[in-house]
Amino acid sequence: MSHVVKKLKIAVIGGGSSYTPELIEGFIKRAPELPVSEIYLVDVEQGREKLEIVGNLAKRMLDKAGLNISVHLTLDRREAISNADFVITQFRVGGIDARIRDEKIPLKYGVIGQETTGPGGFAKALRTIPVILDICRDIEELAPDAWLINFTNPSGIITETVIKHTGVKVLGLCNVPVNMVNYVAKAYGVEMDRVYIQFAGLNHLVWGLRVYLDGEDITQKLIEQLASDENMTMKNIPGMQWDKDLLKSLGVLPCPYHRYYYMKDTMLEEEKRKATHEGTRGEVVKKVERELFELYKDPKLDEKPPQLEKRGGALYSYTACNLISSIVNDKRDIQVVNVKNSGAILDLPEDAVVETNCVIDKNGAHSLSVGRLPAKIRGLIQVVKAYEELTIEAGVNGDYNAALQALTIHPLVPSAGIAKKILDDILAENREYLPQFFK
Amino acid sequence: MSHVVKKLKIAVIGGGSSYTPELIEGFIKRAPELPVSEIYLVDVEQGREKLEIVGNLAKRMLDKAGLNISVHLTLDRREAISNADFVITQFRVGGIDARIRDEKIPLKYGVIGQETTGPGGFAKALRTIPVILDICRDIEELAPDAWLINFTNPSGIITETVIKHTGVKVLGLCNVPVNMVNYVAKAYGVEMDRVYIQFAGLNHLVWGLRVYLDGEDITQKLIEQLASDENMTMKNIPGMQWDKDLLKSLGVLPCPYHRYYYMKDTMLEEEKRKATHEGTRGEVVKKVERELFELYKDPKLDEKPPQLEKRGGALYSYTACNLISSIVNDKRDIQVVNVKNSGAILDLPEDAVVETNCVIDKNGAHSLSVGRLPAKIRGLIQVVKAYEELTIEAGVNGDYNAALQALTIHPLVPSAGIAKKILDDILAENREYLPQFFK
Amino acid sequence: MSHVVKKLKIAVIGGGSSYTPELIEGFIKRAPELPVSEIYLVDVEQGREKLEIVGNLAKRMLDKAGLNISVHLTLDRREAISNADFVITQFRVGGIDARIRDEKIPLKYGVIGQETTGPGGFAKALRTIPVILDICRDIEELAPDAWLINFTNPSGIITETVIKHTGVKVLGLCNVPVNMVNYVAKAYGVEMDRVYIQFAGLNHLVWGLRVYLDGEDITQKLIEQLASDENMTMKNIPGMQWDKDLLKSLGVLPCPYHRYYYMKDTMLEEEKRKATHEGTRGEVVKKVERELFELYKDPKLDEKPPQLEKRGGALYSYTACNLISSIVNDKRDIQVVNVKNSGAILDLPEDAVVETNCVIDKNGAHSLSVGRLPAKIRGLIQVVKAYEELTIEAGVNGDYNAALQALTIHPLVPSAGIAKKILDDILAENREYLPQFFK
Amino acid sequence: MSHVVKKLKIAVIGGGSSYTPELIEGFIKRAPELPVSEIYLVDVEQGREKLEIVGNLAKRMLDKAGLNISVHLTLDRREAISNADFVITQFRVGGIDARIRDEKIPLKYGVIGQETTGPGGFAKALRTIPVILDICRDIEELAPDAWLINFTNPSGIITETVIKHTGVKVLGLCNVPVNMVNYVAKAYGVEMDRVYIQFAGLNHLVWGLRVYLDGEDITQKLIEQLASDENMTMKNIPGMQWDKDLLKSLGVLPCPYHRYYYMKDTMLEEEKRKATHEGTRGEVVKKVERELFELYKDPKLDEKPPQLEKRGGALYSYTACNLISSIVNDKRDIQVVNVKNSGAILDLPEDAVVETNCVIDKNGAHSLSVGRLPAKIRGLIQVVKAYEELTIEAGVNGDYNAALQALTIHPLVPSAGIAKKILDDILAENREYLPQFFK
Repeated sequence: MSHVVKKLKIAVIGGGSSYTPELIEGFIKRAPELPVSEIYLVDVEQGREKLEIVGNLAKRMLDKAGLNISVHLTLDRREAISNADFVITQFRVGGIDARIRDEKIPLKYGVIGQETTGPGGFAKALRTIPVILDICRDIEELAPDAWLINFTNPSGIITETVIKHTGVKVLGLCNVPVNMVNYVAKAYGVEMDRVYIQFAGLNHLVWGLRVYLDGEDITQKLIEQLASDENMTMKNIPGMQWDKDLLKSLGVLPCPYHRYYYMKDTMLEEEKRKATHEGTRGEVVKKVERELFELYKDPKLDEKPPQLEKRGGALYSYTACNLISSIVNDKRDIQVVNVKNSGAILDLPEDAVVETNCVIDKNGAHSLSVGRLPAKIRGLIQVVKAYEELTIEAGVNGDYNAALQALTIHPLVPSAGIAKKILDDILAENREYLPQFFK
Repeated sequence: MSHVVKKLKIAVIGGGSSYTPELIEGFIKRAPELPVSEIYLVDVEQGREKLEIVGNLAKRMLDKAGLNISVHLTLDRREAISNADFVITQFRVGGIDARIRDEKIPLKYGVIGQETTGPGGFAKALRTIPVILDICRDIEELAPDAWLINFTNPSGIITETVIKHTGVKVLGLCNVPVNMVNYVAKAYGVEMDRVYIQFAGLNHLVWGLRVYLDGEDITQKLIEQLASDENMTMKNIPGMQWDKDLLKSLGVLPCPYHRYYYMKDTMLEEEKRKATHEGTRGEVVKKVERELFELYKDPKLDEKPPQLEKRGGALYSYTACNLISSIVNDKRDIQVVNVKNSGAILDLPEDAVVETNCVIDKNGAHSLSVGRLPAKIRGLIQVVKAYEELTIEAGVNGDYNAALQALTIHPLVPSAGIAKKILDDILAENREYLPQFFK
Repeated sequence: MSHVVKKLKIAVIGGGSSYTPELIEGFIKRAPELPVSEIYLVDVEQGREKLEIVGNLAKRMLDKAGLNISVHLTLDRREAISNADFVITQFRVGGIDARIRDEKIPLKYGVIGQETTGPGGFAKALRTIPVILDICRDIEELAPDAWLINFTNPSGIITETVIKHTGVKVLGLCNVPVNMVNYVAKAYGVEMDRVYIQFAGLNHLVWGLRVYLDGEDITQKLIEQLASDENMTMKNIPGMQWDKDLLKSLGVLPCPYHRYYYMKDTMLEEEKRKATHEGTRGEVVKKVERELFELYKDPKLDEKPPQLEKRGGALYSYTACNLISSIVNDKRDIQVVNVKNSGAILDLPEDAVVETNCVIDKNGAHSLSVGRLPAKIRGLIQVVKAYEELTIEAGVNGDYNAALQALTIHPLVPSAGIAKKILDDILAENREYLPQFFK
Repeated sequence: MSHVVKKLKIAVIGGGSSYTPELIEGFIKRAPELPVSEIYLVDVEQGREKLEIVGNLAKRMLDKAGLNISVHLTLDRREAISNADFVITQFRVGGIDARIRDEKIPLKYGVIGQETTGPGGFAKALRTIPVILDICRDIEELAPDAWLINFTNPSGIITETVIKHTGVKVLGLCNVPVNMVNYVAKAYGVEMDRVYIQFAGLNHLVWGLRVYLDGEDITQKLIEQLASDENMTMKNIPGMQWDKDLLKSLGVLPCPYHRYYYMKDTMLEEEKRKATHEGTRGEVVKKVERELFELYKDPKLDEKPPQLEKRGGALYSYTACNLISSIVNDKRDIQVVNVKNSGAILDLPEDAVVETNCVIDKNGAHSLSVGRLPAKIRGLIQVVKAYEELTIEAGVNGDYNAALQALTIHPLVPSAGIAKKILDDILAENREYLPQFFK
């Protein structure tokens, strides 16, 4: 192909995140194919200090790489978005303290408290929805042709909110699928590009329906190996063996987050134990982040420190930069993205967002047709999608009934009574972030 | 209309049941429109004594009514089925003792043990499927034009099994919807025929989407009343108030069995308490039945004794006889039946069985189109339908993996680990009734 | 049931139609169950004289019947609609002369010219859509609870327009299905209520999938009889035998309008012949109407004159009054109505209007689930529905491209080139009635 | 990737075709990536002479190329299929004379007579279906892992027959889409790989929904250019301009065969004219083939003669070899193939075969999700799919009623009466090839 690619402006909302060096590293590695000229790191007033620290590290990293990319640190979101080619969202409304509350409220009632799944993810969605809608209004006005690359969790719900309630071109991302590919590659001692997985599902509830190595279907072999072997875990999920019989009877490859659904009891016990002894995952992350920012401050540091890996989020920049590059370069390769269903999975509503294999080109993501799901995984995905739909309704309209039903039907919540208690706590403790409920 | 109706032969499989007098009473009341000439009550060897007792009561009831209907008591199922017009199935494989085991196994693992829902209903399905398939083979051979009216629980699963695996014309029945109509009628102090409910769902998981009184939509009013009032309960479900907020947020009328799903925790506590103090529901029924059969023995008894009502099953004969009469008399009225979906509910597979409003005529049941379900109820129904589909697969093929997944995804079961323990106990304790698993 | 029914106000748009006496007769016959107190006959300035004539006949008919129903003749549509319970639309934009043009334009290009089907019906739809949308705006404002009973052709397209573009409660009617029932009843020498037909399709493209006599399926027998017998024709369709082999191979009962599709060549020849010798159907009707109005003028005439039957429209009042009575009296009987599909026929879009069996009650029409159509009839219905959808788009937005595609894909039109010629003629000759195209 | 590819055995059914040199040339060009070791050219007794001629040319071509590929000429189909990796079907039951009859019968009744569309394609399908089913039985037995690459027309119908009635892995091919890409590339003076078209439809009824040049959507621009420019025609379709208004109003890119549908009248006139003056297309081809075989006989000829291009079938080998190479090499690139729908196009049955963009890898073709089609093209595709479904039913079962309905609903056939005449002629003139009808 012989077409000139324009210089790119990238806006990163939540630019003060500890993940930013990972992203910068990605742009450095992809420099030959991704002609980035400007990166705007934007954050809110409370994140000003972190933004300074991480922004300066980013500048040092780019300097070292000898790349002519200018980094702007700003609290002015509109300036950052204006005429951007890509807006990457990785912000966290309420910061790490809100996450810790999200984890603790459910635990109080004997329910798993997790950042993205169950009542924790629900609370995060309610806080995030008003902000993402604001951001989208800015994009519609200031950068209508921009792609919104959303990493903010719960990524599927946020993406569906944007698709249903704005005109912004959005793709939802998550590093879970690529980590599953990576795991399989490592298990077989091969490069990632020799492994291909047919994914279908929702964000953090995605299955590998078929796993291929060099084009050979190894699904059954892999499952048998997994049933006898250690694991498939990423750092922000307590490491625990898959139930052997479960895996065999399932016949497809679950993602790490499925443990919360299939192994509710042991996961809950593990969470409780950890909360007591080492703190919730959020509390651990808070400490890790504090240490990371201490490292980032070092004016001699000019590369992503290896300690960042403890933070989780492996292959985050790989996923984001791969996607952006395929769009920019019209690659037509296959990546896993959260997109509007439009019939790709026949068992889910056409206007729902699903996470599935897509061909990526200049015009975005084009899902491969999945057809009908096996009964074994169909029901769970359908009930969680109904939960997501209700969560969006609640998050957009501040609808208490929708919120209560969202939590009530969530598979991690044992009853409407407990759902109500958790919901009332969430509303009370997040009051400042939930204008839609407290008008 | 002016057409001659032929005399009807009715075969009742499980004819020795304590419910039979209820059914006989139904035929007596409907005699002017239902020209029954022969009733075959058929049972298995173990039920011979009960069959004698209840059969003789049936004869005395019909004598008293002055009806020329001959009652045959037999252990020869094929004789009963041969040339029958209607085959009514109300049998219970393994008898009341199997039910008690179904209730106790899950309780051992902290899971609700219930006759028709959850692991208890699952075990009952596994026992029943091989028998119903045998019966259907007899019907295909000996009475291919007969209607199978199935009351054997779990009625939806059994009906779906028959539709998917045989050529028999079947309609699945349950008295839950008619009892919900009855409840609403009583609540408003009106006759049942002034209340009309648009039902949609699955057997024992059916919602009243809209409730009408004299054609006026009273759904919201009724829900508010229910949210403040005592109940809507039938005798074989522990009486317990609906959570007020749940009802309001739901916006449609749940059925009594929904409590097991929406109020898992309190229902479980209640069950445990009762199991300890008065016995499981099965144990209570066992006692009630023993007493009933003592009553039935009385040669002077020639009508349905009022004590039968304690047994549960209210309006059982009303439901059955209404259906049979509408078929025989080509009435084209609306009743709630378990039928093949075929697109009536767009959110469920086309070949699934659903419980919904149908026009009943000589050619069977023709469902009204429901369209798409609201998200609030869509997810639950979908996950339970996936459970049912897997249960049928397990029950027909003796497929352990399907069985384990069926239990694992059931909303009442907290994890794959517990599912496996329960499944293994069920298989072990029901070995004699599960030839499909122990070939 | 024991509820008081309020007195009804009926507004008839196009009240000056020659059909009005038929409708009045219907209200007279139904008086015991239909408590009509006011009938507003409304027409436009050009119809003033006819309105006077037919309105006075209506008054004489009601006087003779001794009914206390007041008839109002008015050109003020808003007065008529205000607080009406039912608005019946039977108007014809452009009058009979427009119809004659609709018939002649296609004929000029060797294409069938028919009032409701093909380019003729298309032209009528374009003229009618702006007017029906105006009427609906009045109803939304002045009688938001009223039912719009639409008889204006093409009835399916007009009903779909109202459903897609307004908030008015509408039911589309046609006398074709009831005439098919009537035909079968006559063929077997029985009363209509002993015949039941399962209809599915679109307005003027409806099939009887199954035909029952006293509940017995007589479909095959009937088709064989039809294949050997004279007909099934209504007066406004040239009488012509069904092709015997066609009927047998079809396996379901077509409606009279299917001849235009299945027997395009012979129908066209017949039309051409008639146009030359006796005039188009519109020209014949024009003469019939002139004669009818002469009769109507007679101050001694106080009943529907038998000559009206020549006009076509048999059972028109039967259909309308049946529907209104079932709504008013919450009957829950089954009638054939044009309603939103919502999944009743799985092969058509959910938001399309279909003509099918519905349960009628106080809340309107509730379709029975049809499922999937046999391939033999599926394709034709789908292509005609696409034509209808494009016609609505063209009619609402004045979209030339949609209009040209609508005609191009219509099965009666042989090519895009001819479609364009016909379209351009239609636009030119109907300029005054097509504000949407000539803004 | 680093995996060893086994040597391939290719069986070509209809190996004596004049196209074979095109295919051989394709294998020669792809030799570096396609490790073919054996090519079996198989034909029937009547084709023995042609097989000898073309087979020897093939040998000379491969010799010249210095490739170590052995060519086997055989009348023993089973020997050819046994252990083949790919079975390519390009046979023609009844030879060119049958094709000429297919063209002439419809013309007799004023209907377009075309090899693959309308009654001509229908007749070809009836002759081909029994043979392809025989071939598939051989493949199931002798080469169950082989891919059947079907080129025999009507390719979509034949592929759907194989999918519905056999267990063979099949992909249906056609050179129309690749020629459309080629045309666009030529129109813009660029290489084919810079043009990407999103195709959706059926074989010989496929639309380019979106056309991209270097990733930019040029659909509208292209349509405007086409509306003013000469054409897009392939050699075996009479060259004729697209109707300008049609193209503009359509908004998507039609394929050359759409002319038969959209421009029925002018296409018919053109066909009649040609039939009178130069013979039908089949008669022309017969002459061209005779000349080609004279050329092929020349023992000095050792490459594909340029005269083959007059025969039509441009890019035939490009399409076939591309597909085979992507399978063998697990390429995961995008090609247009006829595959089972499975929800890719929501407006067509799930078990229908559609022609659409697919990702090709070692496991076959995986369609991209298309979603819902615009109304402008939806109806035509649906009615033609219904025709195809009925044709398959007729072709497999010898069902006269299905055959008559297939032809009756085909958009090129004006009435049931003419359909019957054509059908009866087809059956009479093809008696020896239609065992399913003459058992």
